[in-house]
Amino acid sequence: MEVFRLDFGFGLQAGKMLAEVVEGNFPEALLPLKEKIEQANKNLLEGTAPGSDFLGWVNLPAEITDASLQEILAKAEEFRAKSQVFVCVGIGGSYLGTRAVLEALKPQLSAAKKGSPTVIYAGHHLSEDYTHELLELLDNTDYTLCVISKSGTTTEPAVAFRLLRAHMEKKYGKGEARKRIVAITDKAKGALKTLADEEGYTTYVVPDNVGGRYSVLTPVGLFPLAVAGVNITDLVAGAKDKCRKLTSAQIDWTRHSGAQYALYRQYLYSVEGKKVELMVNFDPRFFYLSEWWKQLYGESEGKQHKGLFPSSAGFTTDLHSLGQYIQDGERLFLETVLSLDNCDKHVEIPSDESNLDGMNFVAGKRLSYVNAKAEEGTCLAHSEEGGVPVLRIQLSQLNEYAIGQLIYFFEYACGLSGYAMDVNPFDQPGVEAYKKNMFRLLGK
Amino acid sequence: MEVFRLDFGFGLQAGKMLAEVVEGNFPEALLPLKEKIEQANKNLLEGTAPGSDFLGWVNLPAEITDASLQEILAKAEEFRAKSQVFVCVGIGGSYLGTRAVLEALKPQLSAAKKGSPTVIYAGHHLSEDYTHELLELLDNTDYTLCVISKSGTTTEPAVAFRLLRAHMEKKYGKGEARKRIVAITDKAKGALKTLADEEGYTTYVVPDNVGGRYSVLTPVGLFPLAVAGVNITDLVAGAKDKCRKLTSAQIDWTRHSGAQYALYRQYLYSVEGKKVELMVNFDPRFFYLSEWWKQLYGESEGKQHKGLFPSSAGFTTDLHSLGQYIQDGERLFLETVLSLDNCDKHVEIPSDESNLDGMNFVAGKRLSYVNAKAEEGTCLAHSEEGGVPVLRIQLSQLNEYAIGQLIYFFEYACGLSGYAMDVNPFDQPGVEAYKKNMFRLLGK
Repeated sequence: MEVFRLDFGFGLQAGKMLAEVVEGNFPEALLPLKEKIEQANKNLLEGTAPGSDFLGWVNLPAEITDASLQEILAKAEEFRAKSQVFVCVGIGGSYLGTRAVLEALKPQLSAAKKGSPTVIYAGHHLSEDYTHELLELLDNTDYTLCVISKSGTTTEPAVAFRLLRAHMEKKYGKGEARKRIVAITDKAKGALKTLADEEGYTTYVVPDNVGGRYSVLTPVGLFPLAVAGVNITDLVAGAKDKCRKLTSAQIDWTRHSGAQYALYRQYLYSVEGKKVELMVNFDPRFFYLSEWWKQLYGESEGKQHKGLFPSSAGFTTDLHSLGQYIQDGERLFLETVLSLDNCDKHVEIPSDESNLDGMNFVAGKRLSYVNAKAEEGTCLAHSEEGGVPVLRIQLSQLNEYAIGQLIYFFEYACGLSGYAMDVNPFDQPGVEAYKKNMFRLLGK
Repeated sequence: MEVFRLDFGFGLQAGKMLAEVVEGNFPEALLPLKEKIEQANKNLLEGTAPGSDFLGWVNLPAEITDASLQEILAKAEEFRAKSQVFVCVGIGGSYLGTRAVLEALKPQLSAAKKGSPTVIYAGHHLSEDYTHELLELLDNTDYTLCVISKSGTTTEPAVAFRLLRAHMEKKYGKGEARKRIVAITDKAKGALKTLADEEGYTTYVVPDNVGGRYSVLTPVGLFPLAVAGVNITDLVAGAKDKCRKLTSAQIDWTRHSGAQYALYRQYLYSVEGKKVELMVNFDPRFFYLSEWWKQLYGESEGKQHKGLFPSSAGFTTDLHSLGQYIQDGERLFLETVLSLDNCDKHVEIPSDESNLDGMNFVAGKRLSYVNAKAEEGTCLAHSEEGGVPVLRIQLSQLNEYAIGQLIYFFEYACGLSGYAMDVNPFDQPGVEAYKKNMFRLLGK
């Protein structure tokens, strides 16, 4: 089942050309990029370019077995039964994927899915006050923990895990603590793997050939999401369906959403000179999906002084802050809207006799109806009046299956886009720079 | 008392020139901008340029009387006593200032300051599911409400207030509902003012000469912050001290932080061609201060196809997502760090006998110490290795007084910066574009 589609109707010149592509006519101006993306597709499927050691994500959804899901679900059930809070220790790709999926699916005003433990993140920054609050909260809360780190030596999660492990061993005793900790780490080596073996923690493997930002569909995302009450079977099913559609040796340009998105943004970047891609939404639940997307695209493309800078906004909130700049400031942008066709609940705007606020023209309408018109109005304002090309990624529903499709779509398009701009989309050499300086300053 | 200072030490060429300025030598390359900013200062103090109808914020802190604060505090006390939840209805400048100050000062893992009602925002977007959740939650919660809108006809808050007012009147009856609603609106006219007079709501005034993004120190911010348990007396005291320092007819360039910041960023924008200012922090409590700053600068400068695009990141979290791009991607940025010297709590990193994670070199150190070194390491990595000029705004403490200073500093520097780039910093014509389209699509 297809639960999303790309709408190029507000994409201005680039959108018009992509509409041609979808209809089977390839505009001449796009032919050089077509070739590059077809080569990129070959690189991804045949592993013939730099970064090929990290292509495990390409066929990952298809390779996830029912048995491995069942194993994760069983352990997750055990954790769910004995925790009010589930602490998830990780940073970057060991943090954002889980949070992106969970925030999209949990209620907005409660800290957890109904009947599920509250997920609290740790090791994703170094705030002392936050950590103090967390430890204090855990004094009086039953909790379990997972620590996610390939090496076990990344500063933020390593430090947080030292503190939390000590807290847990003091609270529950060493024996019970061992049963309340899961480690997701390298299959064979590294600090965390060694410790986990010594202590006898349950462990799951971060595959060698999947980088952090592509790891949400490995146990890195699946285990914590299962503990949080997300239906990981459906999530994987969505990704699997999208994987089947996108991984074909020959790109069918009329249907391949990943190639279309890569083509569109590469055209705007390399031909029209756009510098910033703004991922926007009209539903706050997409906030962390944008954050996840920022890492995926920023780390994959942002090298050799190249790449679209990934930025984000939440509308209509930010139409009343960044809206002015997007409409009238420097023309730096393309804008990509994560759009949602439906919502779960039903709220109608009431009629009011005095109609002082003048809102009776929408009385009896649902809020989502007004929101949809705000979205359409914004797309028009930004594109036609502001000259900002707008692409809509329309989800027909917000559930695990749809998010699974979306994740794989973004991943595949990112691989294509990165290779098409002649960078290795699977390394991140620049992330080391601050660490190197920090270690020196810490006297390591 | 001065609780913050600007550190230009990582600002590369621009930073070196600003260091000269601070020492009393004015580099020749900066003289044209000096003149522009001095003219801008005159515009702000004498009201002689476009936008002069909206300069009420300039002397606002000095004009806030003890009596007006006492009145707000008394009403806030009444609300605090009878609410578990306080719903704050507003968008843009009627939302971001309150949230920025409160999030900076409340605990991170609890929804409220100790002993204070939980603040829940409404009318800041159009999510139907969110609104449904909110109404459901309020069914079983004692709450009070403030609605903030100059006109009373802005779609998002108007619609939310219709729903909430109906909910409250049904729950408490019309009489009690009247006592649980405060309206912050125009002094004389408009939909909300008319309704408030009819119903007899307590009202506070949004001054005519203060635009939304400059309104946090009016009742727009002060009343909800007082209900939330923020010490608004100290907040105003901080702003007042900064106001006294910055509003002098003659700029003392060696000390005027607002003029220095305006000069620095205008130099990087107009001479070095930077396009994006990235406001970053190493403490999650600053997240919404960055959001508030985005509106302030984006709406003030983003017009006539000009302006630095205001973007933000939270470190060290985002060093593991946007870090790669900032280090090695397109050279679009200047980076401004909201830096905090101290934290309230005390958490030491424990020693570990086996030292598998290799972290014993920081055992016995506080987390904030490691965080400070991460910050310094990042400033070095981004500036010296990445070529990104970094400015640090260093707060010596995180409390109401410091935030008050920071707010006024940003406001004044924004006024200077906007005038210096020859735009009217006090209008926002582009915000209307999406509304116009939306109304048409809604058949208004």
